[in-house]
Amino acid sequence: MTSQIPETTQAAPTPGNGTAAPARLALRRVLIDTYHENVAYMHRDCDVYRAEGFKALSKVEVRANGTSILATLNVVDDQSIVACGELGLAKAAFAQMGVEDGHTVTVAQAEPPESIGALHRKLGGERLNLDDFKAIVQDIAEHHYSKIELTAFVVATNRDELDREEVYFLTEAMIGVGRHLNWHESLVVDKHCIGGIPGNRTSMLIVPIVAAHGMLCPKTSSRAITSPAGTADTMEVLANVQLPIDQLEDIVRAHRGCLAWGGTANLSPADDVLISVERPLSLDSPGQMVASILSKKISAGSSHLVLDIPIGPTAKVRSMPEAQRLRRLFEYVARRMKLSLDVVITDGRQPIGSGIGPVLEARDVMRVLENDPRAPIDLRQKALRLAGRLIECDPDVRGGDGFAIARDILDSGRALTKMNDIIRAQGSKGFDHNQPGLGALTFDIPAPRAGMVTGIDNIQLARIASLAGAPKVKQAGVDLFHKLGDEVQAGAPLYRVHASFGADLEFARQACKKSIGYAIGNVADMPHAFVEF
Amino acid sequence: MTSQIPETTQAAPTPGNGTAAPARLALRRVLIDTYHENVAYMHRDCDVYRAEGFKALSKVEVRANGTSILATLNVVDDQSIVACGELGLAKAAFAQMGVEDGHTVTVAQAEPPESIGALHRKLGGERLNLDDFKAIVQDIAEHHYSKIELTAFVVATNRDELDREEVYFLTEAMIGVGRHLNWHESLVVDKHCIGGIPGNRTSMLIVPIVAAHGMLCPKTSSRAITSPAGTADTMEVLANVQLPIDQLEDIVRAHRGCLAWGGTANLSPADDVLISVERPLSLDSPGQMVASILSKKISAGSSHLVLDIPIGPTAKVRSMPEAQRLRRLFEYVARRMKLSLDVVITDGRQPIGSGIGPVLEARDVMRVLENDPRAPIDLRQKALRLAGRLIECDPDVRGGDGFAIARDILDSGRALTKMNDIIRAQGSKGFDHNQPGLGALTFDIPAPRAGMVTGIDNIQLARIASLAGAPKVKQAGVDLFHKLGDEVQAGAPLYRVHASFGADLEFARQACKKSIGYAIGNVADMPHAFVEF
Repeated sequence: MTSQIPETTQAAPTPGNGTAAPARLALRRVLIDTYHENVAYMHRDCDVYRAEGFKALSKVEVRANGTSILATLNVVDDQSIVACGELGLAKAAFAQMGVEDGHTVTVAQAEPPESIGALHRKLGGERLNLDDFKAIVQDIAEHHYSKIELTAFVVATNRDELDREEVYFLTEAMIGVGRHLNWHESLVVDKHCIGGIPGNRTSMLIVPIVAAHGMLCPKTSSRAITSPAGTADTMEVLANVQLPIDQLEDIVRAHRGCLAWGGTANLSPADDVLISVERPLSLDSPGQMVASILSKKISAGSSHLVLDIPIGPTAKVRSMPEAQRLRRLFEYVARRMKLSLDVVITDGRQPIGSGIGPVLEARDVMRVLENDPRAPIDLRQKALRLAGRLIECDPDVRGGDGFAIARDILDSGRALTKMNDIIRAQGSKGFDHNQPGLGALTFDIPAPRAGMVTGIDNIQLARIASLAGAPKVKQAGVDLFHKLGDEVQAGAPLYRVHASFGADLEFARQACKKSIGYAIGNVADMPHAFVEF
Repeated sequence: MTSQIPETTQAAPTPGNGTAAPARLALRRVLIDTYHENVAYMHRDCDVYRAEGFKALSKVEVRANGTSILATLNVVDDQSIVACGELGLAKAAFAQMGVEDGHTVTVAQAEPPESIGALHRKLGGERLNLDDFKAIVQDIAEHHYSKIELTAFVVATNRDELDREEVYFLTEAMIGVGRHLNWHESLVVDKHCIGGIPGNRTSMLIVPIVAAHGMLCPKTSSRAITSPAGTADTMEVLANVQLPIDQLEDIVRAHRGCLAWGGTANLSPADDVLISVERPLSLDSPGQMVASILSKKISAGSSHLVLDIPIGPTAKVRSMPEAQRLRRLFEYVARRMKLSLDVVITDGRQPIGSGIGPVLEARDVMRVLENDPRAPIDLRQKALRLAGRLIECDPDVRGGDGFAIARDILDSGRALTKMNDIIRAQGSKGFDHNQPGLGALTFDIPAPRAGMVTGIDNIQLARIASLAGAPKVKQAGVDLFHKLGDEVQAGAPLYRVHASFGADLEFARQACKKSIGYAIGNVADMPHAFVEF
């Protein structure tokens, strides 16, 4: 089939003559929160509405003082919301205009985004070039795409729809529209995990270790999207993470590292927009993942990246061939971008550490840093191995020596000192892992029978912690008492759920009734891990 | 990659205990028109909003008196729009609830639609079965899908993503959720065109011809979606087309035919919802086209269908192999549905008839019916050939005799008499084709040089007519003075644009400046038509 011209094209006004000039209205702030979506309100009897042939849900362009935004039009029949002669804007849209209530604005039917032709070609199965991706990504970053157009782009570039050259184009285009950080050093290291493993807070150990070694590690992280905690959520238990970009730069210069939320840095604004449709669809295709991660790391000024790809039956990646395909795609694009990349395929059969949820995970991290005997060994070991790989990017370190250097830094307390420096610099919250203040409403899940723990479902444990309130309720989550390979008696508690609100506790309890997320069996049932560590 | 559990699943409340019971609020009608999208408004300080952890743009379920609807939540900070303790609903959503202002409603976070799992499998590239399609189509018809989910379904079933068995499943599922008409006769005929050719109003000639022959032909049509006129828009110039279903049945019984708008008949409600995202993306994939057309025809009770597939350089289908692939897909699904289907591949190189736009097309149709010497010959010939094919579905008619029978019915005036009966039955508008009342603002487009008309761009002519105001302004459109093969002098008028408003005329003029849509050359430049007629 051949695409027809979309209706928006046919209806778009062509400026340049008196009759088709944009109409003027008085701006009015409408106190409705439409989240990231720009909505404009116009009265049905308004002359402009009648003359211009606008329709409910059509896209309009609103201009004032050189600023212009696109918004979806809602038609109103209530003068108390907007009167004739007024143009209402919902809160987010109003803020973007940057003018006062009552200011004169012009409004016209929006031209379709320039890159729509390229989007239609992709929907038709064609291969796009770098200029196409640049045009699409710029329109996305500038909020010119509707939810429908965003979704179409995400689904049309899903799975194997992008070849590796196109993934490179997309990455390059995403970097092009964001802010770039320049640290003026040749070695800037970073670490990233593709996600999916609850409790996997190695970044909060790796950053202080490699910074204590003297390497520059300006780590920016995301908040949880669908998981019970992101690194930014957990770090926020210890310190302020929303830092203005200049303060972030000062901290990194002073301490060689930071652990901040990446949102304020605006490193890949198109990615932030795409997430708004990828999240509700649970889409996380290889091409989009590679472009999203590498664009942010390169914009953040990294020269060397260690990437953690966990494999397991309930991880994002479930087989070694799949992991190898993903590794090759990351490596191809990284090479094109001149980023030195070290991919590490790790054991993703179960959560890392004991706690799932911001406070519980912060407790685990601080116990590792303090060499507390209660510290989870798997979290410590994984962090040391990844930190070791990063330390080996230092030209003065011999291959194979990284792990021992990292272990010395941790065991000697230098990592703890560095972490405390970073916490103070970002603004300490005074967290004490001995009195973490966990959610006071709890229940324990007992082992249904005696045997060995042979399976822990990452997805179900994450869901239980989310329902218990994490990450919104920082004290909520799941505390694991047993991990894979442990022998348990029937009735022995496997984990404890913490919540702060009764309704949350009930939601978590209902989820546990459907599945506790643990399998008890014997040693033959244990899934094997064919990974480096 | 493996899909993670979507956030909506994690956040969904599990009823069955006191704390998680849905909250009660007083319903308030908010006079905002959000078109087909259900929007609910809740005050930020409302206890329910705070306790339930709702978020702006999350989906909520509103219930009262056994009715329940899903709506997208907007959070409000203005007590004059909604106060604490109230739940506001935009106009369309309020109407669906069917209760008074102030009625108590309960509100809870919406469960994700049951078919979301099947949608995720399709996004992952899997083949779906009949039950999957039934679940998805039911959720779509009941407005359970968000715009994001609708778009994901449409894009994931685009191009060759559906095999022919899946297209049959989708068709069957679409029929399952709509109304079925039963005419209690074994022979119920219909005619359909896949669209894309301006002025192609053969249905308005075929229906009176075959009804005059005595065949039952209950024709329901759509309004224009992106084109300058649909059959319903053009018929509306002559008669009322929005008929209650029982009146439509009475008319068909009395006159053997009708020409009504299909919207009130609710024959394929899921298709009506899908169009809301297919239209802005200009998506019209073979699978979706076949399911959309055949589901409506079968729900309308048709036993025999003649399907018109035009081919041409600016038609929807641009090559014979493409047309043949589409024909086979239509035939496969029709056979599974026990619909007798006759596909006719026709000449789609240029518009049919002289007029483009509702009044201009109605004028052409009436001139053919009245055997007026100004009647466009191509419209007459095409209608007679298609009517002839339908008449040959009559078991008493010999193969090859249909055309002559149709011509006799038209030439004798019996088709005109039948059309006038139908017009009177539906409610005549008293249209006179000798005084059509065309848009008074006009300009002519002259031939840029002398030569033969060797190309007429369907898409550009449709766009010019749309910009001139059609179909909203019924008197607006384009009147063609020359067709393919005509010899013209330099400066001779090729066509006239009619509009009723100055701004519309300007939009059309700007479009003509970009391209007049006509090619002038010599006989060697004429595209060949390898079609039946």
